[in-house]
Amino acid sequence: MSKHYERVMAIYREASDLHGAAALMGWDQETYMPPRGAATRGRQLATISGLIHERLTSDEMRGALGEARTESLAPDQEVNIREIARDSDRAVKIPVTLVKTLAETTSAAIGVWIKARQENDFPAFAPWVARLVGLQREVAEAVGYEDEPYDALLDEYEPAATTKETAAVFDSIRAPLVDLVQRIGSSGVAPRTDFLERSYPIDDQRRMGVTAAERMGFDFEAGRLDISPHPFCTHLGVHDVRLTTRYSETLPMQSFYGVIHEAGHGLYEQGHDPAHEGTPRGASVSLGIHESQSRLWENMVGRSRAFWRYFFPEFSAIFPDNAADVSEEEVYAAVNEVKPSLIRVEADEITYNLHILLRFEIERGLFADEYTPGDLPAVWNEKMKAFLGITPPDDKDGVMQDIHWSHGSFGYFPTYTLGNLYAAQFYRAAERDMPDLSDQIARGELLPLRDWLRDNIHLPGMTYRASELVEHVTGEPLSADYFLSYIREKYGSLYRL
Amino acid sequence: MSKHYERVMAIYREASDLHGAAALMGWDQETYMPPRGAATRGRQLATISGLIHERLTSDEMRGALGEARTESLAPDQEVNIREIARDSDRAVKIPVTLVKTLAETTSAAIGVWIKARQENDFPAFAPWVARLVGLQREVAEAVGYEDEPYDALLDEYEPAATTKETAAVFDSIRAPLVDLVQRIGSSGVAPRTDFLERSYPIDDQRRMGVTAAERMGFDFEAGRLDISPHPFCTHLGVHDVRLTTRYSETLPMQSFYGVIHEAGHGLYEQGHDPAHEGTPRGASVSLGIHESQSRLWENMVGRSRAFWRYFFPEFSAIFPDNAADVSEEEVYAAVNEVKPSLIRVEADEITYNLHILLRFEIERGLFADEYTPGDLPAVWNEKMKAFLGITPPDDKDGVMQDIHWSHGSFGYFPTYTLGNLYAAQFYRAAERDMPDLSDQIARGELLPLRDWLRDNIHLPGMTYRASELVEHVTGEPLSADYFLSYIREKYGSLYRL
Repeated sequence: MSKHYERVMAIYREASDLHGAAALMGWDQETYMPPRGAATRGRQLATISGLIHERLTSDEMRGALGEARTESLAPDQEVNIREIARDSDRAVKIPVTLVKTLAETTSAAIGVWIKARQENDFPAFAPWVARLVGLQREVAEAVGYEDEPYDALLDEYEPAATTKETAAVFDSIRAPLVDLVQRIGSSGVAPRTDFLERSYPIDDQRRMGVTAAERMGFDFEAGRLDISPHPFCTHLGVHDVRLTTRYSETLPMQSFYGVIHEAGHGLYEQGHDPAHEGTPRGASVSLGIHESQSRLWENMVGRSRAFWRYFFPEFSAIFPDNAADVSEEEVYAAVNEVKPSLIRVEADEITYNLHILLRFEIERGLFADEYTPGDLPAVWNEKMKAFLGITPPDDKDGVMQDIHWSHGSFGYFPTYTLGNLYAAQFYRAAERDMPDLSDQIARGELLPLRDWLRDNIHLPGMTYRASELVEHVTGEPLSADYFLSYIREKYGSLYRL
Repeated sequence: MSKHYERVMAIYREASDLHGAAALMGWDQETYMPPRGAATRGRQLATISGLIHERLTSDEMRGALGEARTESLAPDQEVNIREIARDSDRAVKIPVTLVKTLAETTSAAIGVWIKARQENDFPAFAPWVARLVGLQREVAEAVGYEDEPYDALLDEYEPAATTKETAAVFDSIRAPLVDLVQRIGSSGVAPRTDFLERSYPIDDQRRMGVTAAERMGFDFEAGRLDISPHPFCTHLGVHDVRLTTRYSETLPMQSFYGVIHEAGHGLYEQGHDPAHEGTPRGASVSLGIHESQSRLWENMVGRSRAFWRYFFPEFSAIFPDNAADVSEEEVYAAVNEVKPSLIRVEADEITYNLHILLRFEIERGLFADEYTPGDLPAVWNEKMKAFLGITPPDDKDGVMQDIHWSHGSFGYFPTYTLGNLYAAQFYRAAERDMPDLSDQIARGELLPLRDWLRDNIHLPGMTYRASELVEHVTGEPLSADYFLSYIREKYGSLYRL
């Protein structure tokens, strides 16, 4: 008998259906909503969020959750109760007034950030960072944490990750990455990239991206690809997964790797067990694990030598003129150019992580009272100098480049690098299980890898927490060694180190 | 003090926000949803409908409505309470089990209709018509009616309209329309239409439609135009109104008048008072009044001689080759060709109404036990012969051509012709208020008419019921005379009668 469990799931399914509606509203907001629709949409979304919150926190839900824990449940059911209780506990602990104040403050802060960034005026933005840090500290106190407040924030995006462990892993890659970037810089090797600055018609770019996504096994009968200023992937259900990208006529690889990246996220969402749709058992583990799926496809596959063996003829067929004087090897080298740069979202797969380490250290310092918001421009520029050897010419493209802090999102950035590390470790496990993986990729046979990911990572849903999943799939805990040896090998060869 | 009123409105606004979400989900279903997303979408929509129903019928809403009626309210507030009470009463009266059975039966019936239609097999569909008529009769009994069950169904789409009055108006146009169609048929005049059968590229068709809609004052910053198999207009808010159309390369006027028609609906939605968004006071009166707005723009304006004075140069500029050997007068005559035909949605503005009269008489007869579903093909064909002088070659393009009955929608069809009649009467009132209306249109100045409609019809929202609105705007009750004199004058001249 599991009638309390059933009661929990009935309420949760309603919340989950409302979530599907909210996901569509969010997607539409970024893709097709007419500009003047924004105010009403905001109100409608707030109503739906309120209804979801009610369902997670109602007396009925709390009572049913308490009773369900005493029932004898199947393992899948236990996963659901564990995760729903986690969501519900968190929602109950954070006072509704705090949620409201946060929503109002971020809503205002985004506007301030946009303007301050345009005007390169960090002092105008600093008090809002202070306010949001203060509010998130209240969240941390309400939710509770073991060692430091930042734990509670990290936990929202990467359940069960701790600041200390994350810092330890990040510490283990900082020096090697800085060293590698320096050696690449002084290698004297510079890939040819002129052919990527030519004109690539957007319709053809779209075709190139769709070709790759289809080959990866992304099901366009159960998904879409649209355009938005900030690319993302969202899911309205297992069979309705939507990717977006952006196009610039002279940046063909931006949209191409953007599509592969989002399709990697999309495969995770399409790979859940439809029988568990709308439940934690059929949902993704964490942002870090999600990012591992996008990065694995974008970098380990899409930026590999093997991939360009398969894809160069496709590229040449779609862009015969642009590809006429270019070799397969040259494209491979160009898409792997390493160069310290100001902007995170444009960074290569090595320096990207130094951008993340910098943000992680700053966020942790803010919540440990090591820095005040007023210190940030100086700290930012110091770390940019130390990690990447460059100094931002202004705060606009320095400390104010990301929207995250104006959203009040602290603890989000680290999941990007965790994703890269998970990805390398998963990929090594896939190579272990499929020794001819690289040959398959070179032949354009990407489905065996998709199926391996599906079986090992997608189908289990939230059965395991991130760290458990890594151990379960790879046989050992998260280690940065796989990522380091992957980039050392790849870039050692590319840059003849 | 109006605290109970405020309580009603707080609950209603939640329902209204959920409605906005459902409208987006419905729009997306017809435009962008990937095919495999349908099942989950259906479930999500059912959840949202259930939540809306809960809000309308909850003890809290019923109590607050009862109390609010005793409060001293402003006129706008009274409109809201009157209409919310109407919705709530109807929702309370119809048993939840009946709603569910209806939803399940129509969901199955649509599939049966699609197949039966493909196979020209009315006997397979007939039992489902019987079932749906039976269920709608239960709805009518639950809701209550004065004279006949059909009143209760009509009332859902055209509040306060009665079968008897509608029949009387329809009776007054039947013979004149049949006579006019016959006289046109034997006039010996046939407009030249060959140039409309040429190839009209779809991008250019889109441009033509958007040109007209913009000129009408449809705000594309607060709306969109997309493609769907069945054109429609939906609103997610006053500033988010979405039109769809369909394109066929050789049917330029289908998409053109489709866009004008939907933009007419769209102007109504964009014309509501934003201060009353999400309340009955800021909503449209009825389907008939809605249709009056689309038909007025489509026919009285878009198919007028004056309109083509303005638009012919636009048409020629967009399609220089196709327009090269065509005169303004010829286009005007071609878009007003009258010809009895099988299919309602392709009918001209005269015969269209005979298609509606036929359906109205059949529906009324079904609910008055005058016909059984098994009689329908014979009755249909008889009436087609009597009204239009043609006999459908099969039931596929006869009695089974419309989706409405498989949806369980009885009482919907009459609103189309009511819309035509309202439109003619409104248009005459606009001419009275703006004696140079036709000259304005000939100069492409469509905003004065848009503003007149806004002031007189859009901004009042649900302040008046349909019949009251007609009296308020035109100074007299609904009369078919305006429509009859409009078509007699226009077609008398076109067909030299």
